[in-house]
Amino acid sequence: MAVKTLSIHLNTRGNADITDITDQVAAAVAEAELGDGIVTVFSPSSTSAITTIEYESGCLNDLRRLFDEILDPKRPYAHNSRWGDGNGHSHVRAALLGASITIPFAGGRLKLGTWQQIIFVDFDIHARRRELVVQVMGE
Amino acid sequence: MAVKTLSIHLNTRGNADITDITDQVAAAVAEAELGDGIVTVFSPSSTSAITTIEYESGCLNDLRRLFDEILDPKRPYAHNSRWGDGNGHSHVRAALLGASITIPFAGGRLKLGTWQQIIFVDFDIHARRRELVVQVMGE
Amino acid sequence: MAVKTLSIHLNTRGNADITDITDQVAAAVAEAELGDGIVTVFSPSSTSAITTIEYESGCLNDLRRLFDEILDPKRPYAHNSRWGDGNGHSHVRAALLGASITIPFAGGRLKLGTWQQIIFVDFDIHARRRELVVQVMGE
Repeated sequence: MAVKTLSIHLNTRGNADITDITDQVAAAVAEAELGDGIVTVFSPSSTSAITTIEYESGCLNDLRRLFDEILDPKRPYAHNSRWGDGNGHSHVRAALLGASITIPFAGGRLKLGTWQQIIFVDFDIHARRRELVVQVMGE
Repeated sequence: MAVKTLSIHLNTRGNADITDITDQVAAAVAEAELGDGIVTVFSPSSTSAITTIEYESGCLNDLRRLFDEILDPKRPYAHNSRWGDGNGHSHVRAALLGASITIPFAGGRLKLGTWQQIIFVDFDIHARRRELVVQVMGE
Repeated sequence: MAVKTLSIHLNTRGNADITDITDQVAAAVAEAELGDGIVTVFSPSSTSAITTIEYESGCLNDLRRLFDEILDPKRPYAHNSRWGDGNGHSHVRAALLGASITIPFAGGRLKLGTWQQIIFVDFDIHARRRELVVQVMGE
């Protein structure tokens, strides 16, 4: 059993910009040279989140529409009133979707479905340089 | 420390069909013959999800109502327009609820609450045969 | 590699009372005396949940408003009709937000962002004494 703590670096445009990080996570698992175990992908940020989806523009637009409806950026937010920010909606969206995902691998390969990709969603309101934690644990 | 990668097979009816998988996850933990550790339950699919709930018909119906309201299957979805599918809502629901859960066990027993069950929610629009990954890691 | 299963005890007021548990999780990681690995924080309950957020009153109020809008406690719930409870909304909120989070640590320190705290949200409708599971796994 061993643990390897690695990173992924991304440039995002913000405003629910969605990046497919599947290949980078798979590369981290390969680099760890472990057979079976879990990879935890974690976003050390309060305005971004990680999940899985079929990465095609229809699904991505449908996901963005959901967040525009239940957490509309044009409404007032207590966070914005208090701090003069404009990203109150970004914080709540990130808390709802979640900063972490744990995915099993076996035989060195992620156990993802055929049409299932790992995505990073940057809910913040401007372009950002992001660093994600990718920790591989197994044997 | 050891890792065991196992499976659960399910037949679902789709359309937010909810299956209580607690006993099968507990059986996988028992089969792994480990004392303390985590079990990761993962759905290798982009139209289904895993969470915990009190498994009684009232809660299940209330959960289904939430998804019918925030992701109504009768509305247009960009995924459907693009691919001629009817399961655009299924994809967004699955991405929101999440494909993965990690639960600790100790003394060979899942650390669940008394009224808390692990559920698999099949958001796809027809009956499916599903295989979930259940990976047990511990000592 | 080792596993340590610890607990956090909390007194909450219910009704989406939010507690910052970051220091207690960090203390559990320190107590485990491991360098690199994951900590899984799990709520053994069907009416509470765990996520991360910037812990300031604006964000917390914005998060509570979301849940009041999509899962309004004043509406009828099938769970309440069936059992005479008043916490039907609590169950669905908890299932949506999730009972579990997995966070990597390295060099004995949680890999959280600067403005990112771990929160426990008690969605139940009265004050409760809660015990959370904090399991640390690593080397």
